[in-house]
Amino acid sequence: MKYILFFLFASFFSTAQVTKEQLNVMPWPQNISLSEGSFALTKNFKVNITGAPNERIFVGATNFLRRLDGRTGMFFNQGFITGLNEVPEAQLQINCVRGGKIDLYEDESYSLDITPNKITLNATTDVGALHGMETLLQLLQNTNNSFYFPVSKTSDFPRFTWRGLMIDGARHFMPVDVIKRNLDGMAAVKMNVFHWHLVDDQGWRIEMKKHPKLIQMASDGNYYTQEEIKNIVKYAADRGILVVPEIDVPGHGSAILTAYPEIGSKVEILNVGNGEKGQQLKQIQKYDLERNAGIFTPTLDPSNPKTYELLSSIFDEVCPLFPGKFFHIGGDENEGKDWDSNPKIQEFKKKHKLANNHELQTYFTMQLIPMLKKHNKELMGWEEIMTKNMSKDAIIHSWKGANEGQMAGQSLVDAVKGGYKTVLSNGYYIDLMYEVADHYAVDPMPKNVALTNEEKARILGGEAPMWTELVTPATIDSRIWPRTAAIAERLWSSENVTDINSLRKRLKTVSFRLEELGLTHLKSKEGLLRNISNNQKSDALLDLSNVCEPLKGYTRNSDGTEYKMYSPLTLFADVCTPDASDAVDFDQAVLNFLKDKSAENQSVVISYLNKWVKMDSDLNVLSNNAPLVQPLLPLSKKLKDISQQLLLKIDKKENVDSSVLNNLLEKCNTKEHADVELAVYNSLKKLVQA
Amino acid sequence: MKYILFFLFASFFSTAQVTKEQLNVMPWPQNISLSEGSFALTKNFKVNITGAPNERIFVGATNFLRRLDGRTGMFFNQGFITGLNEVPEAQLQINCVRGGKIDLYEDESYSLDITPNKITLNATTDVGALHGMETLLQLLQNTNNSFYFPVSKTSDFPRFTWRGLMIDGARHFMPVDVIKRNLDGMAAVKMNVFHWHLVDDQGWRIEMKKHPKLIQMASDGNYYTQEEIKNIVKYAADRGILVVPEIDVPGHGSAILTAYPEIGSKVEILNVGNGEKGQQLKQIQKYDLERNAGIFTPTLDPSNPKTYELLSSIFDEVCPLFPGKFFHIGGDENEGKDWDSNPKIQEFKKKHKLANNHELQTYFTMQLIPMLKKHNKELMGWEEIMTKNMSKDAIIHSWKGANEGQMAGQSLVDAVKGGYKTVLSNGYYIDLMYEVADHYAVDPMPKNVALTNEEKARILGGEAPMWTELVTPATIDSRIWPRTAAIAERLWSSENVTDINSLRKRLKTVSFRLEELGLTHLKSKEGLLRNISNNQKSDALLDLSNVCEPLKGYTRNSDGTEYKMYSPLTLFADVCTPDASDAVDFDQAVLNFLKDKSAENQSVVISYLNKWVKMDSDLNVLSNNAPLVQPLLPLSKKLKDISQQLLLKIDKKENVDSSVLNNLLEKCNTKEHADVELAVYNSLKKLVQA
Repeated sequence: MKYILFFLFASFFSTAQVTKEQLNVMPWPQNISLSEGSFALTKNFKVNITGAPNERIFVGATNFLRRLDGRTGMFFNQGFITGLNEVPEAQLQINCVRGGKIDLYEDESYSLDITPNKITLNATTDVGALHGMETLLQLLQNTNNSFYFPVSKTSDFPRFTWRGLMIDGARHFMPVDVIKRNLDGMAAVKMNVFHWHLVDDQGWRIEMKKHPKLIQMASDGNYYTQEEIKNIVKYAADRGILVVPEIDVPGHGSAILTAYPEIGSKVEILNVGNGEKGQQLKQIQKYDLERNAGIFTPTLDPSNPKTYELLSSIFDEVCPLFPGKFFHIGGDENEGKDWDSNPKIQEFKKKHKLANNHELQTYFTMQLIPMLKKHNKELMGWEEIMTKNMSKDAIIHSWKGANEGQMAGQSLVDAVKGGYKTVLSNGYYIDLMYEVADHYAVDPMPKNVALTNEEKARILGGEAPMWTELVTPATIDSRIWPRTAAIAERLWSSENVTDINSLRKRLKTVSFRLEELGLTHLKSKEGLLRNISNNQKSDALLDLSNVCEPLKGYTRNSDGTEYKMYSPLTLFADVCTPDASDAVDFDQAVLNFLKDKSAENQSVVISYLNKWVKMDSDLNVLSNNAPLVQPLLPLSKKLKDISQQLLLKIDKKENVDSSVLNNLLEKCNTKEHADVELAVYNSLKKLVQA
Repeated sequence: MKYILFFLFASFFSTAQVTKEQLNVMPWPQNISLSEGSFALTKNFKVNITGAPNERIFVGATNFLRRLDGRTGMFFNQGFITGLNEVPEAQLQINCVRGGKIDLYEDESYSLDITPNKITLNATTDVGALHGMETLLQLLQNTNNSFYFPVSKTSDFPRFTWRGLMIDGARHFMPVDVIKRNLDGMAAVKMNVFHWHLVDDQGWRIEMKKHPKLIQMASDGNYYTQEEIKNIVKYAADRGILVVPEIDVPGHGSAILTAYPEIGSKVEILNVGNGEKGQQLKQIQKYDLERNAGIFTPTLDPSNPKTYELLSSIFDEVCPLFPGKFFHIGGDENEGKDWDSNPKIQEFKKKHKLANNHELQTYFTMQLIPMLKKHNKELMGWEEIMTKNMSKDAIIHSWKGANEGQMAGQSLVDAVKGGYKTVLSNGYYIDLMYEVADHYAVDPMPKNVALTNEEKARILGGEAPMWTELVTPATIDSRIWPRTAAIAERLWSSENVTDINSLRKRLKTVSFRLEELGLTHLKSKEGLLRNISNNQKSDALLDLSNVCEPLKGYTRNSDGTEYKMYSPLTLFADVCTPDASDAVDFDQAVLNFLKDKSAENQSVVISYLNKWVKMDSDLNVLSNNAPLVQPLLPLSKKLKDISQQLLLKIDKKENVDSSVLNNLLEKCNTKEHADVELAVYNSLKKLVQA
């Protein structure tokens, strides 16, 4: 290509001095300093690897090269990197002292030195070197016709050793490609633990050779084969990521009990036959896969030896698939209803002097510890497993907060004070559609609690859970990204890195770059909007989606039955995301205007209001041939109505009755339409009240 | 959801009478008649299956329901369909007389009867019923607030029994999810043969347990596991699709010979050592995986018994993965250079009285027939295998045409006259970026050749080959779709269905609907443009992409070395597609204007010209921070320059020197920029010359 040659020469031209504020690195490194000058990228850019790294470095370095290639369109001469010291003269020299282990507490540090003619990446382990390559990719700059790296020195290491993302493959099954691209996303922001929620009321997702009934009866044909699991574990390890599997017991048991009702806790009296032939039979409850969302009663029977036989056998088959040290057994949300109503279980409690269901669950969980220890696995569970007799070897996964009637992070403090290692998820529930600022403000290290250094050390880090009641493979990425990158920064960077404006600015570029990994968080929107618009071209629908956010918390699917697990979720709410882009920008425009009512600041605000007036009119036209647009019209009208009045007031300087304004404004404070809310309400309120 | 209830009632309101011209069915059915009235869709819509179908019907019916669900946002109550006669009262009744075989000549017919209260889909086999469900999905209509099917009767069957798509997984490896979504696309347009090109100079893509060297040395780690292959074969069969694997021999042999150089044809004299210690050694040639595109010399040695031992053993392992009756052994583009220069092979020819390399290749191919017959497979090969002593059992894949110095389809006629069954691919090379009208005009049944009925019957059908030298998983869909749907229509529908305007109109909707299958042909564009623009918002780049088409034929990568097989292909040419949308629409606008110079017709033309003037200015702004936009500026400028002059002439009624116009016009007839051409050149020419 002719213009490649052009680049070759052009790239030596002026590259203005870059400042730290211009960098879009995330997580922000522990130390970075910039100097004058730049390293110019050319088609002949090459990578050389020395030292004694694990083989994963070759996969990593080749992927690094291809991504840089794709961004720059340079199509470097170097193809695959498969061995040590292949190109001693290469401009990028990567040295690793030793192979890294995929485990907690591994040395993940690296140092990156960019000079005008050479880049040196040194790390103790290849895992650190992988992180360094991600930083280098994020440091890429460009002029109008060339790409370069700024001369700089970075030395970096993580603050917490557990920087996790959980994906629920049970509610909506997430195929292998979805998992893989999200592992790539994790690696790009230096996350290192993938918690894979594989079993829940809605499905069993692990191929079982000794217990095929679990997939035959409880997966709808949607499961990961053992080969696929091994392949994903390898894929994760190649990216420095540890996989922690979860089989959720004893609650969330519908799937297991669909296949093995005999170990369920419920015993029911059934009326069989009718009329004179009718009789009452006490028989094993039949269970079915759950199709709704919520907390359900099906629970394993802790008094039945068969329960433990089955679980032990399951662990024997599943544990070898996961070489990592941890196994998550869930343990959450067991309400014990079926235990209370089962006389046999009540007897069992008495016999074992178990005062309540908590102690009964502890009894149950304690049986699992040796089953896992046999495979060198430590048991991890949601905070409910932390009862008074629970082994101190268990890792406590802290998740409850205000929504569960508890102080946020309380269980984390309780855990470390009680001698348990712990991981924080409360505050990181990305499925709940809160804005990025909320998650970014949550720190695993409690602020106002005095902890000893020993106790602090038990706080392993944090993890963002992505539950999948309301997402499909087409929408999950837009729920995970880009917000999870902010959580990754919280877990990696210094606790002092907290500037939300800097985060927001960097997140735009980070989000854009994540797309090169195949993540669909940006482009999935287009296809879904095309369906809603019935293939009609229009900016109006996009404009509306940029000021709407899905209902937050558990309000969208409040009774858990509005959407089934097989619902394709192709609605407007599925297109919208937290941090609606125009809403964020409009808020800034309003703040600017209220601070300084210059003509320029005013015109920005007015252009938004005009856009929404036009949007409403365009949406009405669109809706003539698009049934799925109909439910959005009332929402659009509300925004148009207040916009028109504000235009009269601000643009035309007319006197507008404040009661009229307030009335129209409050109509925008609604959750009644299409499972979304108008994210501009608060900004509009500022304008109205100004 | 409140609006679902709204739909329930609204859907009973007026639905205007639909005409055949409004239907967006493709391939067009053999018989379809519309009557007044409609079947209204409600949330309670259900499917029931009766008869004796193969189990694949349950997968198919469940998928059908989910797709209808996603389109309408109704989220039907019915979840999974897993057995016969589950819902006897269902509105959609599907009956199949018997299970279908995944084979040629299977009965694929169906009849579909839509009445206001009931839909009946009858078919001999489930394969026919699957086709009927696709037709039903395509018949979906809507009012402003409801969805319905028009009352109608359809009876349908295919014209040809081989309606194929070939995907080359060797040049650029195409992961499982790419294959699966394209199988879904094939099923949506009733194609039934997936030809999987699995081996070429650039890679061996089949996991081999007995010959692991093939993947260890010749796949770059990119291959399909045997489990994945079985899984894909099952996935295809569930959609009525037969999989035909291809291992291309004896040419295109670099990958096989990288692992097994000892069966290569080349013997080289090597200088080993230097100075006094130097000596000449005759030794086995070392082969490497090919990274470029083109025709290469590495060829298996037909005189070496080890060649046949290896191939026989390979077939023994690969054949059982594919239950279908056909195995494609390639056989193309063997230039015989290494045969000519190898004395041992020349001796072998003499000994076996093989007059030339064609006869030698025939000798080679004939050895493969019993290896395949052992597994009940018929041998298929590209037309080069058709030499005078070739077995009549072989199926001839006709591919050469003008580009290969041959009359298009000549080998097809030769084949059927010679007693061979044959499949046409010449004219269906979708990787070459020709417009849909070109492919649509090609009919497997030759027009001007007298053939007996027996000879005609040997024409099995046609197949669209998608070679992957210049595509990646991110771009392949946009090369396959939507044009392949037009080829599917050519192969299914009556030979009289040839109206290109009707095709173009229907193709817009078909293309849109294919997106629901996860195909990325529409939305991949957005992500690539975001990269080129360096994440700057702008319509200009999109506007330019809508008037540009990638260079056609083999001109883009003419020496085969500009792009390597590991090049990520993220350039502007990779975003552009044949049938550039604005170019097609502009041509119509020009035709309308030249026919009737009304103000309205003129304003449409003028708005395009104005758009391109503004586009050029916007692109210049964009390019200040986007190196990948730079190479597009000269092209944009050429379009702007002629647009400005035409605006002066048409809009301002000024006298513009025709030599100036012609000069600027011819600058638009260029292939010099960014591997694309301006698809509006011909339309501009009409305007200039008017």
